[in-house]
Amino acid sequence: MRRLLLVSSSRVFGTGYLDHCEEEIRDLFQGVRRVLFVPYAQKDVDAYARLAQERFESLGFGLDSVHQAADPRAAARSAEAIFTGGGNTFLLLTRLYEHGLVRVLAEGARGGRPYLGTSAGTVICGPTIKTTNDMPIIYPPTFEALDLVPFNINPHYLDPDPTSHHMGETRETRIREFHEHNHPAVLGLREGSMVRVDGDRARLIGAPGARLFQRGRPPEERTAGDVSDLLS
Amino acid sequence: MRRLLLVSSSRVFGTGYLDHCEEEIRDLFQGVRRVLFVPYAQKDVDAYARLAQERFESLGFGLDSVHQAADPRAAARSAEAIFTGGGNTFLLLTRLYEHGLVRVLAEGARGGRPYLGTSAGTVICGPTIKTTNDMPIIYPPTFEALDLVPFNINPHYLDPDPTSHHMGETRETRIREFHEHNHPAVLGLREGSMVRVDGDRARLIGAPGARLFQRGRPPEERTAGDVSDLLS
Repeated sequence: MRRLLLVSSSRVFGTGYLDHCEEEIRDLFQGVRRVLFVPYAQKDVDAYARLAQERFESLGFGLDSVHQAADPRAAARSAEAIFTGGGNTFLLLTRLYEHGLVRVLAEGARGGRPYLGTSAGTVICGPTIKTTNDMPIIYPPTFEALDLVPFNINPHYLDPDPTSHHMGETRETRIREFHEHNHPAVLGLREGSMVRVDGDRARLIGAPGARLFQRGRPPEERTAGDVSDLLS
Repeated sequence: MRRLLLVSSSRVFGTGYLDHCEEEIRDLFQGVRRVLFVPYAQKDVDAYARLAQERFESLGFGLDSVHQAADPRAAARSAEAIFTGGGNTFLLLTRLYEHGLVRVLAEGARGGRPYLGTSAGTVICGPTIKTTNDMPIIYPPTFEALDLVPFNINPHYLDPDPTSHHMGETRETRIREFHEHNHPAVLGLREGSMVRVDGDRARLIGAPGARLFQRGRPPEERTAGDVSDLLS
């Protein structure tokens, strides 16, 4: 039974690293002593692991980073809980395939091991990374991802700005283009929002809510509460 | 001798399709009677070709769309001039490879055939599409592109907004991440700006100018005028 906490962004304006989801992290990681951190969305994995380690120690958890393990796959197989941080989604997915970690992480999460993702770490829980906002700075062997939930996620979701004079595509336009070529629903998760998944139940958390895009239907607003329909 | 006009965006706020670059298009396409349009960055290629055709007829040029040719490669080989429009860069590059057009377009442009690109049609003139802003809605066989200029282009370049409360990466941050993994310079081309390339000479055109990012150096502003140094 999967237990996931999929957070849009690790920071919201005016608060510190993981502050806005601290209570939900404690709830997800009840009974966990050490968390295995996946730092590959960022180039400087040492610095990133230190940041995560300090923050998790302040919450009372030990944290090891998978990049420091002699055998990353063995470490990922035996970990009590996983936290995958944000950065660049293309880089993250490429490194996960290079280290043979995609299947190990997916199987662990499907087996009930608690998984926390923020931003890129959240995107990879969908069927593909095709709804990332990131620049494609590195070419991954595929866009297929962990497929822990049947919908795609667009983190840092931004509503169109009616005062903007910029002619680049809005986020909504980009997601509509995604649906010209792909079927999964897309959850546009605003900063400050997150989804908690327990087996076949899903709950949207956070005041900013989310915007749900389904192929061939008008977008709809989702507010905090049950969103288990997204899992079927 | 290459002759390219690389336009950031086909529209700027408050003006019509290709209005702001009309004079430069006329200059690039001097002596050309019919232009071959490459519509593959958008899903609805018929509607897109109609838009381009109407606009080019108003400028006094005939326009055929490569998607309507019985043999797209032959059409691309024999065309007098090329215009590749914007949309989604991943879709454009994927379709160009599917139709075997990447090498044909690159060779034609290197041989001196005038090439006009807007947005995605501009991005593909760099070594790779790794500095596109688009969502990766489709998986291309590679990120390698036409390589007509040695630098990457980021169209619709946006300066950081100091009043924003959004925690997603700024464009500058994204380009810095590109340089953690790639060497080419990146020209952040603001809407309203374009680059004209004639052989070994390049000229930046348009009041908004551009921001130049080079690996290991602070970003620098470039204003309208000679930018031939970018070609060496």
